[in-house]
Amino acid sequence: MLELTLDLGPRTYPIKIAAGLLRSPELPAQIRGAQALVVTNQTIAPLYLDPVLKTLATAGIDADSLTLPDGEQHKTLATLKTIFDQLIARHHHRDTTLIALGGGVIGDLTGFAAACYQRGVRFIQLPTTLLAQVDSSVGGKTAVNHPHGKNLIGAFHQPAAVLIDPDTLATLPPREYAAGLAEVIKYGLIADADFFEWLEQNMPGLLTRHPPLIAHAIATSCHTKAQIVAADETEQNRRALLNLGHTFGHAIEAAQNYRHWLHGEAVAAGLVLAARLSTKLGHLSQTGDPIQRITHLLAQANLPTALPPEIPPTKILNHMHLDKKVQSGQLHLVLLKKIGQAFTTPNFDPQKLIETLQEPQPTKNLP
Amino acid sequence: MLELTLDLGPRTYPIKIAAGLLRSPELPAQIRGAQALVVTNQTIAPLYLDPVLKTLATAGIDADSLTLPDGEQHKTLATLKTIFDQLIARHHHRDTTLIALGGGVIGDLTGFAAACYQRGVRFIQLPTTLLAQVDSSVGGKTAVNHPHGKNLIGAFHQPAAVLIDPDTLATLPPREYAAGLAEVIKYGLIADADFFEWLEQNMPGLLTRHPPLIAHAIATSCHTKAQIVAADETEQNRRALLNLGHTFGHAIEAAQNYRHWLHGEAVAAGLVLAARLSTKLGHLSQTGDPIQRITHLLAQANLPTALPPEIPPTKILNHMHLDKKVQSGQLHLVLLKKIGQAFTTPNFDPQKLIETLQEPQPTKNLP
Repeated sequence: MLELTLDLGPRTYPIKIAAGLLRSPELPAQIRGAQALVVTNQTIAPLYLDPVLKTLATAGIDADSLTLPDGEQHKTLATLKTIFDQLIARHHHRDTTLIALGGGVIGDLTGFAAACYQRGVRFIQLPTTLLAQVDSSVGGKTAVNHPHGKNLIGAFHQPAAVLIDPDTLATLPPREYAAGLAEVIKYGLIADADFFEWLEQNMPGLLTRHPPLIAHAIATSCHTKAQIVAADETEQNRRALLNLGHTFGHAIEAAQNYRHWLHGEAVAAGLVLAARLSTKLGHLSQTGDPIQRITHLLAQANLPTALPPEIPPTKILNHMHLDKKVQSGQLHLVLLKKIGQAFTTPNFDPQKLIETLQEPQPTKNLP
Repeated sequence: MLELTLDLGPRTYPIKIAAGLLRSPELPAQIRGAQALVVTNQTIAPLYLDPVLKTLATAGIDADSLTLPDGEQHKTLATLKTIFDQLIARHHHRDTTLIALGGGVIGDLTGFAAACYQRGVRFIQLPTTLLAQVDSSVGGKTAVNHPHGKNLIGAFHQPAAVLIDPDTLATLPPREYAAGLAEVIKYGLIADADFFEWLEQNMPGLLTRHPPLIAHAIATSCHTKAQIVAADETEQNRRALLNLGHTFGHAIEAAQNYRHWLHGEAVAAGLVLAARLSTKLGHLSQTGDPIQRITHLLAQANLPTALPPEIPPTKILNHMHLDKKVQSGQLHLVLLKKIGQAFTTPNFDPQKLIETLQEPQPTKNLP
């Protein structure tokens, strides 16, 4: 078993990575009281709910479960209320534990419910998608969406443990697997040039889902995320680096009404746009052709590397400004100095942003 | 101006008490960004919204406002959503400040909205009822109700400041003023025998709302609350003392479907019941006749000192157990050792609780 620690003083917790973790005593060992509620969705429940409930029952924990409909469109206050209803109907106390069994949507919903139920109860992340395993399950960001914006209502509420069972990736559709790889590649770009090189060498093996390669990719990604979150839990500064590619990505998702590309796919295109803008602004040297390397690696992972052709660049720009208006009042960009070193800046020439969005992009815009 | 500090490390904040504070530069001085949203209700808005908006405008802050319907029945997730809708419609950023202008319901709703909007923004309490000024505005407990229980969904989210303007009490209906006095008397019982004596000597003057007496009562109450919260922000142990009289009080409110007695009135009867049970269990000596003193002081303040006659004691008992089931799994009681010293215990003879509820109560059960 690989084990990392997210060091947050009294909120420090372990991130454990091992095949079969869903079925191991590590899971009940993380529960303190006699109650638990497993929250999952209709896609994951037939695959993994029974093993999880059985693992808990073997340890004497008679857990309740709640199976939600699958999809980002259900990440709402209304769905959150169904979790509270279930907790209250089943008389869950302050010492209950919520268990998020699923991808990012389930983790965000369950974590936010845990943040608010009786002003905060314990919760455990059991992420079942690559994206959740390398990114959303770690760091304590929980939220629901508002009709006018993603993650506008939420809390910082750290899990008590993140238990990652890479065996669950065996059932993940290829497109979702690729979407998770976008976030993996992101960590290389932000802070770890060696890891980026490792990904360049091992992408074919990762695409065959070779277990030791997957475990290394997850552990390295979680290590970088844990370091950054430990330094800046509530995103006052450094944590914003994790949004590399996301300002573009969110705008793409919003322009598509969240209906076409997956989050990771939009981030992939966003990573290329961020790199191209970084070059245009003079931050990222063309020596070694970093844009070509980034584009090639993402394309190898079956990810888009350019804007969706059906969306006019002006629409993307409008969504970036709309997002900015609500989120922070100022458009902060995360840019690259080189592969392995990102930085944030509020100062940039807006004309260069427009040029980046408008210039022809001789690259893939899957799917 | 009286000024106290609630010492919570990075979340430390001032509690300021002064006539006219709503109209003073102290209010805009607590705002950091350029945005603010004042949340109030239909009763308070005609009285104090304009002065508050004017005070902010004078300092260059063009605040938005939201006026909610008045009443505990509106302390729901649905009302919370209207606050989020307004924040988003008006493009409030992460550096916005929410201002709660009203009583406990407005404070709890606004504080919880501030806890969740963009995962936490700044908020200021401007309490306008005695109950909010001495109790609910201090300490960071925020919540909404669920159809099956009060305050089941919420957060610990400390205000950036509590600004108490006792002038607002001039417009408070007598019954609500009395309800606030129940919490004031509670502080004497929990931790301050001298203050209890002072209240015995000054209740007639307090009932005439004599400003220096009110200011002393508010400051002393806030001082005790601040001490207890500083020692135990998230109610792991000592903070539970603040629930003296509340287990009984909540059961009375629930048995009445929250329709008859005010919260403070139910707490008043609960204080007498807690004292009587304390005596019956052998914790509170009858020397000096403390029950008579407590009953007399509450009755002087025009508060009930016995169960509502129309509610059968068995119904109260059922609600206490129902509350227990959801809240903590075990019925913890807050009891008295003497006037000025409360303690909590999970261990008591349940038969004594039943006797306490069932024995004839030769005392007032207003209103």
